[in-house]
Amino acid sequence: MTTSAEAKGAASGLPPVHVIGTGLIGTSVGLALRAVGVDVSLEDQSETSVALARDLGAGRITGEVAPGLVVVATPPDVAPGLVLESLRRWPEAVVTDVTSVKQVILADVVRAGVALDRYLGSHPMAGRERSGAISGRADLFEGRAWVLCPHETTDGRATELVGRLARATGAAVSTLSPLDHDAAVAAVSHVPQVAASLVAARLEHLSEQAIGLAGQGVRDVTRIAASDPGLWTQILSGNAPAVAAILRDLSTDVTRVVTALEALGEEANVADAPGARAVLARSIADGNAGHSRIPGKHGAGTATYAVVSVVVDDSPGELARLLVEIGEEGVNLEDLRLDHGLGLPFGLAEVHVLPQVAGPLTEALQSRGWQIHG
Amino acid sequence: MTTSAEAKGAASGLPPVHVIGTGLIGTSVGLALRAVGVDVSLEDQSETSVALARDLGAGRITGEVAPGLVVVATPPDVAPGLVLESLRRWPEAVVTDVTSVKQVILADVVRAGVALDRYLGSHPMAGRERSGAISGRADLFEGRAWVLCPHETTDGRATELVGRLARATGAAVSTLSPLDHDAAVAAVSHVPQVAASLVAARLEHLSEQAIGLAGQGVRDVTRIAASDPGLWTQILSGNAPAVAAILRDLSTDVTRVVTALEALGEEANVADAPGARAVLARSIADGNAGHSRIPGKHGAGTATYAVVSVVVDDSPGELARLLVEIGEEGVNLEDLRLDHGLGLPFGLAEVHVLPQVAGPLTEALQSRGWQIHG
Repeated sequence: MTTSAEAKGAASGLPPVHVIGTGLIGTSVGLALRAVGVDVSLEDQSETSVALARDLGAGRITGEVAPGLVVVATPPDVAPGLVLESLRRWPEAVVTDVTSVKQVILADVVRAGVALDRYLGSHPMAGRERSGAISGRADLFEGRAWVLCPHETTDGRATELVGRLARATGAAVSTLSPLDHDAAVAAVSHVPQVAASLVAARLEHLSEQAIGLAGQGVRDVTRIAASDPGLWTQILSGNAPAVAAILRDLSTDVTRVVTALEALGEEANVADAPGARAVLARSIADGNAGHSRIPGKHGAGTATYAVVSVVVDDSPGELARLLVEIGEEGVNLEDLRLDHGLGLPFGLAEVHVLPQVAGPLTEALQSRGWQIHG
Repeated sequence: MTTSAEAKGAASGLPPVHVIGTGLIGTSVGLALRAVGVDVSLEDQSETSVALARDLGAGRITGEVAPGLVVVATPPDVAPGLVLESLRRWPEAVVTDVTSVKQVILADVVRAGVALDRYLGSHPMAGRERSGAISGRADLFEGRAWVLCPHETTDGRATELVGRLARATGAAVSTLSPLDHDAAVAAVSHVPQVAASLVAARLEHLSEQAIGLAGQGVRDVTRIAASDPGLWTQILSGNAPAVAAILRDLSTDVTRVVTALEALGEEANVADAPGARAVLARSIADGNAGHSRIPGKHGAGTATYAVVSVVVDDSPGELARLLVEIGEEGVNLEDLRLDHGLGLPFGLAEVHVLPQVAGPLTEALQSRGWQIHG
């Protein structure tokens, strides 16, 4: 893709990079850097793993190792020790770790009492459902966020170098303090995960008929509830204070809604009903406000698209034909969702477009014989 | 669509239908029934609304009205009175209402002390972001669930007739008691809405950088948080006991997770940590189990699809070209999601296919020059 090649090109001139830990993330870092011509050396406590990463093309494991930049890509429990060891082994090199929670790692490193100007944590927000070197991909970070988390004594040149590394893999770079990073991922990732899991858990014992009423809403809310319990226990444990703080607020909010519903459920309490209704309306309205903060496509702020819903037969090629004809009308698709009906051999394609083209597109598709759904 | 025409054909032979209330739902019922040749008469307290519904083709407002089936499609507050009035006006007709919560309506109707063998509530699970006759659509119910809620004294022939009506509109029919219906929609619709709104509300005051880390997970969890506060205050109020019951359980679950996180956050309490980790793992695992209950495409039970992620340039026609080529490989698309990167002019198309075709498809697309993402 020319676009990602341009982004990578801007990051040329990286010094030799040494990757410690050749699991999914470390191997993918190596593959991405090798693809743009960086000299990458690899290290892992498992000889099998590091040999596999080398064979996949993630870097070399022989020859002189004199890195300008060290990437510690190991599990969190061993990362602080390897950061400190790397700072000692290579007195000129910048060192970063790429674990998904930053404050606990920094606290461990600081405890050693050494100079940390050449160290900063960072977090590439990418993952896969599979782990290990074999799952590594050169494009794992493409289009994903990579957060730099410099601490108080990090040298600006160290931050700049890790940023250049991240951009070289195709990632979009941003900078947050370790505490702010942990609070941010608690709000935008860890708490939504807990909420999705707890809502999904309430579906487990529904009757077949009841669960049969599940529509797109609950599907969306609970999609990430399919996540791995082992992985998420580690993530939540490593960010316990930040996640607990938001969940406490959330629990207060749930209790407020329950109290309002109980007032409305008791007909005797009609006097309380207006206040109770206001609590419900306020809860939904606050959700509107929070939802509107989520950036839209291309991080360009929230855009409101119009949705044109088209009935599409469930046969190969029908959806493709629809999209070809949308392209022929000169309309750019902003987003697309498929909504399959209950027990019916067709679905709805929800075509998101800029509001001003929704009307003309609807007419054009109807004249081409497509059924536009209400 | 031949498929929906077949479904409608099976429902032929409906008696004349009288629709009271020509808003979105009533008008759409009229349009859907007129499309398959049923005699529909219309009534509304607003002369403007009923004239508009007639002009749109939803039915007639003149001539003799002797319905075999009456559909009360008004707001919940007036529905019980109109159900009772309809049972009196047409002593032979079956009467149904189509409000979205069933037990409160039934309780109101029962209070009148008349025979209710010709009455049952029902609930077409369809809506639009717009209201009124002008928004009515003949295909509003196509592929949506329409739940029949007979009570203890409903005659079997009445249930059969309302089921025939629902199928004539293209809906998929199921049957639940009013209480079971309300509990089911509380679990699969109302509680997920509250959870999505409360999680989204916690995003409102995040910094720009923090909210910039939002990925597809939180987008999915909070998508329905954009819903209308006025509408949802009505829905939650009308189903207060059932929603409150599930939210109380959810609140207990949240508190259990908070307690576990607090134990893990305090290093002094290392002895509690194994139990706390087990609480977290169990919460995520229970979510797995609940999530797996949600039916897949075509209501055919949960299917696990493999996902092939393809990098797609953000230019018109690129996604269409991808889908055309997938069709050329003879592969049927089970689902499709678009995931746009942060500040990058390309996105990922997540192509869901049957597991056995994922490998061949990946190879075929790569040989056609597509970049397959990890």
